Amino acid sequence: MSKSAEEVHPKKAFGWAARDTSGVLSPFKFSRRETGEEDVAFKVLYCGICHSDLHANKNEWGSSMYPLIPGHEIVGEVTEVGSKVTKFKVGDKVGVGCLVGSCHACDNCKNDLENYCPKLIFTYNSIDHDGTVTYGGYSNFMVANEHFVLRIPEGLPLDAVAPLLCAGITVFSPLKFNGLTEPGTSIGVVGLGGLGHVAVKFAKAMGAKVTVISTSSAKEKEAIEYLGADAFIVSKNPQQMRAAMGTMDGIIDTVSAVHALLPLIGLLKFHGKLVMLGIPDKPLELPASPLIFGRKIVTGSCIGGLKETQEMLDFAAKHNITADIEVVSMDYVNTAMERLAKGDVRYRFVIDVANTLKEA
Amino acid sequence: MSKSAEEVHPKKAFGWAARDTSGVLSPFKFSRRETGEEDVAFKVLYCGICHSDLHANKNEWGSSMYPLIPGHEIVGEVTEVGSKVTKFKVGDKVGVGCLVGSCHACDNCKNDLENYCPKLIFTYNSIDHDGTVTYGGYSNFMVANEHFVLRIPEGLPLDAVAPLLCAGITVFSPLKFNGLTEPGTSIGVVGLGGLGHVAVKFAKAMGAKVTVISTSSAKEKEAIEYLGADAFIVSKNPQQMRAAMGTMDGIIDTVSAVHALLPLIGLLKFHGKLVMLGIPDKPLELPASPLIFGRKIVTGSCIGGLKETQEMLDFAAKHNITADIEVVSMDYVNTAMERLAKGDVRYRFVIDVANTLKEA
Repeated sequence: MSKSAEEVHPKKAFGWAARDTSGVLSPFKFSRRETGEEDVAFKVLYCGICHSDLHANKNEWGSSMYPLIPGHEIVGEVTEVGSKVTKFKVGDKVGVGCLVGSCHACDNCKNDLENYCPKLIFTYNSIDHDGTVTYGGYSNFMVANEHFVLRIPEGLPLDAVAPLLCAGITVFSPLKFNGLTEPGTSIGVVGLGGLGHVAVKFAKAMGAKVTVISTSSAKEKEAIEYLGADAFIVSKNPQQMRAAMGTMDGIIDTVSAVHALLPLIGLLKFHGKLVMLGIPDKPLELPASPLIFGRKIVTGSCIGGLKETQEMLDFAAKHNITADIEVVSMDYVNTAMERLAKGDVRYRFVIDVANTLKEA
Repeated sequence: MSKSAEEVHPKKAFGWAARDTSGVLSPFKFSRRETGEEDVAFKVLYCGICHSDLHANKNEWGSSMYPLIPGHEIVGEVTEVGSKVTKFKVGDKVGVGCLVGSCHACDNCKNDLENYCPKLIFTYNSIDHDGTVTYGGYSNFMVANEHFVLRIPEGLPLDAVAPLLCAGITVFSPLKFNGLTEPGTSIGVVGLGGLGHVAVKFAKAMGAKVTVISTSSAKEKEAIEYLGADAFIVSKNPQQMRAAMGTMDGIIDTVSAVHALLPLIGLLKFHGKLVMLGIPDKPLELPASPLIFGRKIVTGSCIGGLKETQEMLDFAAKHNITADIEVVSMDYVNTAMERLAKGDVRYRFVIDVANTLKEA
């Protein structure tokens, strides 16, 4: 049984919460804990809107606890640090992504893979160490253990960096883990949305030859001229797909709708890797023979550990990579959610929390 | 258009061939080429019966060219070598597996992965460099380029080593490629047939903890007491499957019937690997979420290159590994095929070619 943060925590906070499966967000007063010895407290400046916020708001994954304050692409400025905090000081620009806790004892934690810890604590809608439900970044301030706080490198715009804390690390980590970072590597990116457009940027910065694979040609010009992709394939065009057969070392598949894997596997070279990042609501069809005769791999990846997330941010700063965003006010959030559900955003909404979140 | 070996080749040979989709084998006279400069000719002593022979005989994969002489687990004694042959001499005990040719120019060939060469030439039912159809080991002698001829290490029984040339390398290669050879690695083997029983032996010799996963408990005693598996799970027993969740580093899945992947993926640890070796005739259902949240891998593997096949044979000799076989005479082969189709063999038929193949 989770405890109410209001009963346990002393610091008054406010934000916007979903109250039921309508998913509609509205102002909500709550509490956060005192800044503990290892904690960093920070004023929230910006928070990205991730597609998973939409699912959580409406309980589409079946695990939502209401009231639910979403938001796990959070950027802010440190206001207080605990006595044992060593990495941060007041005034630092920091971020929190999808995680605020893990066990620190399992093999994954020991290997800087807190994101795969079986006891990981998500930034919102998760049970924290003290038994309270975690609340996300659609709120005025955050308190988090410094281990789960990232340093925002200087020079990156604080609004456009926010989505990197989820979308960015989600595409960066599999490129690294699957050995797809060598210059000249041929990378396919399926789906040009919040994740896909950042995947193109990271892969290009690593020196890859990047091909965007999309269901329609509508985004071709943008993909090539603006994002710098080397090629564009319409997945429904058999000629284009056939011409690209066997050319890719790896594919970053960001699509969360049910879709055919066989054509994508066909695009891979021998020993190539298809990395799924989206979660379709039904199983996909997997033919065994192309995996066997090409020794190809189908795998997945889920965000990244804290060490790698910091590395991703530093890489982004070095290569001047941020997300393409539309900044919105807090009271626009329900409209933004409706537009997000229709894919009507280029490519990520970010809420200007500091300037637009008013205490109810 | 393939050429008839009889028109092109001078050396009279005989064997047993399937003539039509009945798959029934019967005596067949044909020809083989002269022993070329780089060729090794050898008298066939033993030939294993692989499950794929059954499919080919009946044209179940749609690519059979009749008359078809199957057999790609061939062991024999060298009778003649070409002038440029350096690795073999008359009297040597040698083997030929699934491959007799490749392009020697592609990336796979350059990396000792002839088995993934797009122009690979199979030992039977394939078009050779000279345009003739290749004939397999259910025959009195073979001629093959020395690159595709393996040395049978001393000390291994020549009949029981034959199946290693296909079944053995098919399970050995993915254990190596997928990093599953460290002592203490936890390996699951799904299906205890021709491939599976050899997989247990190799994995045990590498120092793995081996769990056999089977649809029934009938083979439990044999798997543990005779083959030396550490554990046995009945895949239809939910309690046993649940108890083993998240315990395996890798799974060698030898099942070629349509089967559920989700329970097998569940057996894997984080970052674990499921290697499919069998080819079901329909796509399997692949749920994305366990791959994503566990960063698990589903992959496949197809036999192995020549260098690795020799390494496998040498490893087998060092650890005294061979297949468990039932030796049969050539005129029993049609009965053996019927029994194989029913899974009625423990675990591989091997034809005593030298002693039982009579010229028609």
